[in-house]
Amino acid sequence: MSNDNTIHFRPIGTIHSPFVEQSGTPTQPRSAPDTEGKVTVLPEYKPALLDLGGFDRVWLIYWFDRSRPAELTVVPYHDTKPHGLFATRAPARINGIGMSPVRLLGIEGNVLRVGEIDILDGTPLLDIKPYVPKFDAYPEALSGWLGEAPKQGPVKADSRFSRP
Amino acid sequence: MSNDNTIHFRPIGTIHSPFVEQSGTPTQPRSAPDTEGKVTVLPEYKPALLDLGGFDRVWLIYWFDRSRPAELTVVPYHDTKPHGLFATRAPARINGIGMSPVRLLGIEGNVLRVGEIDILDGTPLLDIKPYVPKFDAYPEALSGWLGEAPKQGPVKADSRFSRP
Repeated sequence: MSNDNTIHFRPIGTIHSPFVEQSGTPTQPRSAPDTEGKVTVLPEYKPALLDLGGFDRVWLIYWFDRSRPAELTVVPYHDTKPHGLFATRAPARINGIGMSPVRLLGIEGNVLRVGEIDILDGTPLLDIKPYVPKFDAYPEALSGWLGEAPKQGPVKADSRFSRP
Repeated sequence: MSNDNTIHFRPIGTIHSPFVEQSGTPTQPRSAPDTEGKVTVLPEYKPALLDLGGFDRVWLIYWFDRSRPAELTVVPYHDTKPHGLFATRAPARINGIGMSPVRLLGIEGNVLRVGEIDILDGTPLLDIKPYVPKFDAYPEALSGWLGEAPKQGPVKADSRFSRP
């Protein structure tokens, strides 16, 4: 952490997808069964991909580089009522960190082919972690307001959280 | 992103736990059934916690502030053989972003009481997201080398990824 209380990260690569604007982009991998994308990792980090190929899914951790500044309460895509920002997955966050458990289709050199992608084309990649059900899957956890939200099926984004 | 290609984040709060060093700290919430901690969110962000109380779990996104610099292949806690960094959940990462799906026990004002915590005391908090099984739970996903790793039970950390 710097003296001014900031933490600095640098992209480790770039995410490529069919989606060039938030409007119309799937809001979660579960809403994007048929979409494919590519993740290009900087060549110097290629050795860090060793043995990743055995995992069905990977967490992509990335920067929401095209979201508008955060507001503390938001009307999320799945509802018509406002909720606290930290009770939503809205992309306009205090620290714009996104995470998506995409399907891993293959790895060639420093490029990952991924499916079920819900991320804008050109998004800066911050980290890749393997998806491990023993660590990450809690299928019985209660979903608060989202469990009773009016929109329960696959939801696509609109422009409400886009940078003007 | 700045001209020098860095992305800047600022902590939104601090994570408090019983663990003061990596050695002996649980490596995942599933390894920490009986541990409790507190998450203090900066008072100005309290409105962003609205409606979070209905969720059983929350993702804490945080900075691994006491990990050593990253190496591209590592021998992770669960194995005796090296694997690519991005195929592990090791805390010494290129961008030291951690994520833990802890149990949410209660919220009072700007303080969250959480269970199953696997995070060092004093860790800078970057984001809170609700855990949503529909978005996050893929219990059937294959776990690559971790599915066959020698250590399958709860694993505690040692000092291998600590800052010297």
